[in-house]
Amino acid sequence: MNSWPTLAPVLRMSTLFLRTLREDPADAEVPSHRLLVRAGLVRRVAPGIFSWLPLGYLVYRNVERIVREEMDAAGFQEVHFPALLPREPYEVTGRWTEYGDTLLRLHDRKGGDYLLGPTHEEMFTLLVKGEYSSYKDLPLVIYQIQTKYRDEARPRAGILRGREFVMKDSYSFDIDDEGLQRSYDRHREAYIKTFDRLGLEYVIVSAMSGAMGGSASEEFLAPCESGEDTFVRSEGGYAANVEAVVTVAPEPIALEGLPAAHVEDTPDTPTIETLVAVANAEHPHPDRPWTAADTLKNVVLRLDYPDGTSRPLIIGLPGDREVDMKRLEAQVAPAVPSPFEEDDFTKHPELVKGYIGPQVLGKESPSGIEYLVDPRVVPGTAWITGANEPGRHVFDLVCGRDFTFDGTIEAAEVRDGDPAPDGSGPLHSARGIEIGHIFQLGRKYAEALDLKVLDVNGKSRVVTMGSYGIGVSRAVAAIAEQHHDDKGLIWPREVAPADVHIVATGKDPAVFSTAEELALALEDAGLRVLYDDRKASPGVKFNDSELLGVPTIVVVGKRLVDGMVEIKDRASGQREEVPVAAAVAEVLKACGR
Amino acid sequence: MNSWPTLAPVLRMSTLFLRTLREDPADAEVPSHRLLVRAGLVRRVAPGIFSWLPLGYLVYRNVERIVREEMDAAGFQEVHFPALLPREPYEVTGRWTEYGDTLLRLHDRKGGDYLLGPTHEEMFTLLVKGEYSSYKDLPLVIYQIQTKYRDEARPRAGILRGREFVMKDSYSFDIDDEGLQRSYDRHREAYIKTFDRLGLEYVIVSAMSGAMGGSASEEFLAPCESGEDTFVRSEGGYAANVEAVVTVAPEPIALEGLPAAHVEDTPDTPTIETLVAVANAEHPHPDRPWTAADTLKNVVLRLDYPDGTSRPLIIGLPGDREVDMKRLEAQVAPAVPSPFEEDDFTKHPELVKGYIGPQVLGKESPSGIEYLVDPRVVPGTAWITGANEPGRHVFDLVCGRDFTFDGTIEAAEVRDGDPAPDGSGPLHSARGIEIGHIFQLGRKYAEALDLKVLDVNGKSRVVTMGSYGIGVSRAVAAIAEQHHDDKGLIWPREVAPADVHIVATGKDPAVFSTAEELALALEDAGLRVLYDDRKASPGVKFNDSELLGVPTIVVVGKRLVDGMVEIKDRASGQREEVPVAAAVAEVLKACGR
Repeated sequence: MNSWPTLAPVLRMSTLFLRTLREDPADAEVPSHRLLVRAGLVRRVAPGIFSWLPLGYLVYRNVERIVREEMDAAGFQEVHFPALLPREPYEVTGRWTEYGDTLLRLHDRKGGDYLLGPTHEEMFTLLVKGEYSSYKDLPLVIYQIQTKYRDEARPRAGILRGREFVMKDSYSFDIDDEGLQRSYDRHREAYIKTFDRLGLEYVIVSAMSGAMGGSASEEFLAPCESGEDTFVRSEGGYAANVEAVVTVAPEPIALEGLPAAHVEDTPDTPTIETLVAVANAEHPHPDRPWTAADTLKNVVLRLDYPDGTSRPLIIGLPGDREVDMKRLEAQVAPAVPSPFEEDDFTKHPELVKGYIGPQVLGKESPSGIEYLVDPRVVPGTAWITGANEPGRHVFDLVCGRDFTFDGTIEAAEVRDGDPAPDGSGPLHSARGIEIGHIFQLGRKYAEALDLKVLDVNGKSRVVTMGSYGIGVSRAVAAIAEQHHDDKGLIWPREVAPADVHIVATGKDPAVFSTAEELALALEDAGLRVLYDDRKASPGVKFNDSELLGVPTIVVVGKRLVDGMVEIKDRASGQREEVPVAAAVAEVLKACGR
Repeated sequence: MNSWPTLAPVLRMSTLFLRTLREDPADAEVPSHRLLVRAGLVRRVAPGIFSWLPLGYLVYRNVERIVREEMDAAGFQEVHFPALLPREPYEVTGRWTEYGDTLLRLHDRKGGDYLLGPTHEEMFTLLVKGEYSSYKDLPLVIYQIQTKYRDEARPRAGILRGREFVMKDSYSFDIDDEGLQRSYDRHREAYIKTFDRLGLEYVIVSAMSGAMGGSASEEFLAPCESGEDTFVRSEGGYAANVEAVVTVAPEPIALEGLPAAHVEDTPDTPTIETLVAVANAEHPHPDRPWTAADTLKNVVLRLDYPDGTSRPLIIGLPGDREVDMKRLEAQVAPAVPSPFEEDDFTKHPELVKGYIGPQVLGKESPSGIEYLVDPRVVPGTAWITGANEPGRHVFDLVCGRDFTFDGTIEAAEVRDGDPAPDGSGPLHSARGIEIGHIFQLGRKYAEALDLKVLDVNGKSRVVTMGSYGIGVSRAVAAIAEQHHDDKGLIWPREVAPADVHIVATGKDPAVFSTAEELALALEDAGLRVLYDDRKASPGVKFNDSELLGVPTIVVVGKRLVDGMVEIKDRASGQREEVPVAAAVAEVLKACGR
């Protein structure tokens, strides 16, 4: 049995509450999840719910500290809201319902309705409303670092997408749009500093504001293969979340002189593929073969609203493109889209499955079904599309002449090679983890909750707000995704659980006493030291040092008889032998001190 | 409108998110609640649920930091559990049910049962079980600083008793009782250091372990009038929670020669008062008047168990004492006691209300009702008590001769002047706030959740645990309770939101530029500075400086024309004029630097 553990200041592995694992956990799909569990930093409690163990919590707290320091340095003020919140304010803004199943709701002993905050717009707005009343009080930015709850349908990837997680969320309050822009810009700067210090590579992309109901909006994405977000960028510098990509629409074509529409028999062509084949065989194009891009596909969807109602929506898009459900979801939120089922078709006999054409669609049409088209469907474009009879299609159906639509929608997939909307070249897609989000929320919440101040003329004005988030616990996983190799984690220095990891090998008492002295001397010099003083084989200790990923590793072992220790850089693998007497100075140098 | 607020490093009141209130909040019953709200440190969101505003959160974080530093210094290791927890482990230990209405329960979208952790015994036990397997791994202490949830029936006193609050909870894991004692002692030391640094006056009292099911147990109580806990102490050094006070029982009396019991008519004597009056009038004591202490009162209670069952319990105690419901609750937990209702009496015709005597009570009696007596009811004591017939009592009923009981119970009120159980003199009662609790939990949770390790002989042994808590958010309120006057808060230096509060008064620009320079110089010297740079009257500023309670106040005002500023000690009210040139040095001295 050990004597009482003296963990502080040196972290001694003989008493550290840490057990590394040799095997990957069965449920881990992504590298950060595998490695954070194997390195003994987190443990799963329930789906999407994790506990932090000592080394993991040290990393988490480093991330939290950096975020806090940068928020404070920017002049933002820290507050702290509860996680358990009353229903009423969320009822006022409609989000009690809109959030759907993602919101964790509960009753207290008196039957009162409560929720676990997924975000805190309502609380921030009400807090400022309670204290402030004049334009002189503005601008204001307040933030918190706090635990949030979202009952994700598929919690996955460890702490990358959990159901209980920590966010830094700030809100800015300004009297006018110029003020909001300044607050937004200031956050953008602070986020750049924060993510730079965290050692994260990131791309700032234009983003949809989605369900939040704002305008200008950017996301900080950490590129990595396991990211849930797809974004695109061009060589010329454009970058956007796929949800935010604006389609480059062709110029409209003059209608005069375009061939007339004609209905043709196209038996057994319920799919684009069969339709193109039959069109080329039976009704060939005069100059070139027909392709899927010549067809207008009408996709029937059902939109379910949080209030329980639902309605159909038809989207017309070139037949060579699919509807991208994430882009669509961003457009129709808070409604949730799903494919039309047999049952739904039964209720709409005017929709001939596989042969639907735009002639019967639109709010003003007899069907009354809303019809939105891809921005590429501009006046003058001619299409092969359904004739609203089984086995028949119409050719040369011209937009703006033969059919109309209720509006356009950005719901078609974005493909590599599509042009960037700013003319900066073709787009290429990549995946990333959303680590930050800044956006101009505007007056939605201030209006709903009546947050007004008197302006310089004594007139009451609704305040305009910005909303800014950083995934604090998620950042730990994002860093792990970007900083690891096949042997384990490689922490950037500022977030690492320690600066230096001293590995004492063998059984020679001189090794352990030298290692101990070195550990204490390095602590005295201001480094955070992890010291492997266990009775374990060198192999076990070396493997653990690679797995844990402390940036600088010092091996005190068999070369000590010659007065030498080894300093190893975890990231580069570079090793260097130095005399014991020079070890402190050399380690400090390696640690950038 | 202000330019962008530059809050850090100097806290400037012109941009600080702070509005002090002149009036006490209507719902505030205790000084800390009144003052924390008036000073703009917290705001209420729902009953027992509060938000922290910037100055309040600075105080909170100071408390949190001190607690963490002392835990780390003691060699305890920080972990962090979720607050949202699955039902299963709490089902295994029975607490899913036992916690009753105090537990906030909820369902996730798949219908799974979850709870918001009121304490984390189960999670700590399971975490250690998952990682450790040998006596060599022990001892271990892990702790967390984390948000807890308890749906109090009557949340009150602001953050003193909230429904969402922050606790530091640690657990020790040892192979044997000696180890547990060492872990316990080490916590006791760490708590003493922690509360000393927090500036709290406290008493360490013996405590019941209550529903937690342990043995040795002490509470740290901060004496103050608004405290919810009553404790007693003697001049000789005994101190105990009222629930834990052990009654000093008299020596048994030999039965031989005691007068025989005799039943007497005592019409209309359903109360002790009427009984004593009739006894003295009709059946006088040969030597002295009868008093209430000569009567044996049998109080009928109903115990409701968490599983929905209930049963009666009768407690026999001297008629001059009442049952103390808190002492009783601690004894019968998790059952909840309540007075017997008419309905209950109807079901038990053998109980003649107002005339119940012990002759028909006890598990072995025909009634089968459990009968527990106060420890003062020892063999040989003679009593006037009910004869189990309306209007009749029995005199000289001798314990151990004429009646028996099922056991004793510590449920009678403790009164000032009662003897301390250790012979250290009479007890005096006081009120306090429970700020810490340490106790030897033992093997209850380890047994329920099967936490075993191999001992030195390779035999599997159940681990023994200790449980240790500090109310972190509550400590902020406890400090406010102990450190205030009629003008406002008086923070102990280490938890204060700032070291020094600079008040610039008047309209002279020289005042503001001098105050600004002083603020920056003091920050450079390592102090945390709150600077009142507002355009407000001196009266408003002085009042706010008293209300906010920063320990050192510097007034830069009309005396500046003579080159003088004033340094004031918030606690003592002592003022001193110093030359501007000496201000930095003098303030540093006042701040103990």
